[in-house]
Amino acid sequence: MLTLYTNPFSTPALATLLTAFSTETKFDNIVVDLLKQQQRMPDFLAVNPHGKVPALKDGDFTLSESTTIMRYIARKAKSDLYPTDIKDAALVDQWMDFIAHHIRTPFSHVQFGRMFAPMFGQKPNEAAIQNGLNQLQNNLPFIEDRLEKQKYVCGDTLTLADILLVASLDPRDAIKLDLSLFPATTGMLKTAQQSDWYKATHAHLTKDTEA
Amino acid sequence: MLTLYTNPFSTPALATLLTAFSTETKFDNIVVDLLKQQQRMPDFLAVNPHGKVPALKDGDFTLSESTTIMRYIARKAKSDLYPTDIKDAALVDQWMDFIAHHIRTPFSHVQFGRMFAPMFGQKPNEAAIQNGLNQLQNNLPFIEDRLEKQKYVCGDTLTLADILLVASLDPRDAIKLDLSLFPATTGMLKTAQQSDWYKATHAHLTKDTEA
Repeated sequence: MLTLYTNPFSTPALATLLTAFSTETKFDNIVVDLLKQQQRMPDFLAVNPHGKVPALKDGDFTLSESTTIMRYIARKAKSDLYPTDIKDAALVDQWMDFIAHHIRTPFSHVQFGRMFAPMFGQKPNEAAIQNGLNQLQNNLPFIEDRLEKQKYVCGDTLTLADILLVASLDPRDAIKLDLSLFPATTGMLKTAQQSDWYKATHAHLTKDTEA
Repeated sequence: MLTLYTNPFSTPALATLLTAFSTETKFDNIVVDLLKQQQRMPDFLAVNPHGKVPALKDGDFTLSESTTIMRYIARKAKSDLYPTDIKDAALVDQWMDFIAHHIRTPFSHVQFGRMFAPMFGQKPNEAAIQNGLNQLQNNLPFIEDRLEKQKYVCGDTLTLADILLVASLDPRDAIKLDLSLFPATTGMLKTAQQSDWYKATHAHLTKDTEA
């Protein structure tokens, strides 16, 4: 059985959970308490020496880096979310790279300023927030353009690129991110929210929070 | 025939060239003149709408994002640089992600401050340089630890992760980066510099510069 090490505030961790549920992969889930610095404890460093969530353990085999874990889960499940055709796989790779670097990273800067800084009693860095917002306004049109023409980022089939996008923008309401200029993107996100894998993931997260 | 769109100052582009030479992939190479803003011209935007090098064209098929292009070239060549075994591939994915985010990105901040800013007549951002140097000092030990124990990042066989590392740190002398604390890493880089694929890549780059 796989074990996923996650935290409910981490969008990279959310991407691995959504991948597990969408591939119907059975897994144990260990929530790493980042506020208690559990990611720096020896137990967790034995799984991921880099001290970051998400991480994965499969027997003696350990992995870190969210997109790596997503690919591993999909390959192991022989899922079409990560195609075996060379060109199809390359398109998924390309959009995963684009989303990780050019959507998730600026989103995380806005999220840090608007959500985590207040949590930690820090003054938000307004320049970093604005820089993140500007990058999102510049980069989201590339996604919007795809989703205006087709159902999902890489075509008419759901792939890991979509799951990464869904995860990366998931706390958009909590950080008051205005995506009204991107109706095709928000439409896709809303459709995804109605899926079994999205609902199962969030039911799982809610259960954890209540535990 | 593949066409690779590169620029000699881009370490992501260098990674794709090294991959092409190490897999003995034949390709045409178009150098995109970034100083003349050729990456913003319609001809290039038709290949990569994101306006960045590297990019790849294979018939009607186009790709962007350096690690995506590296994977595509290796898969197409059926090269062991990107293994087909699920766990072996995952290790390569993990270290490519680590090197791209945690080595190449901070290196690029130092490179921008010490090499490109002076070229463009800009004042170097010393805080950004120092931040990049600090991140490299924090992150390179994870690579050093691997290379103390084994020949290459993922084991005793060369993979895309090594090629990405070689490319990402290639202009280290030009930016006066002190890597003396990481003898196993610099040893691996020096061994790579003696390889046919490294020499062929740099001979190709020199030829381009002279043309």
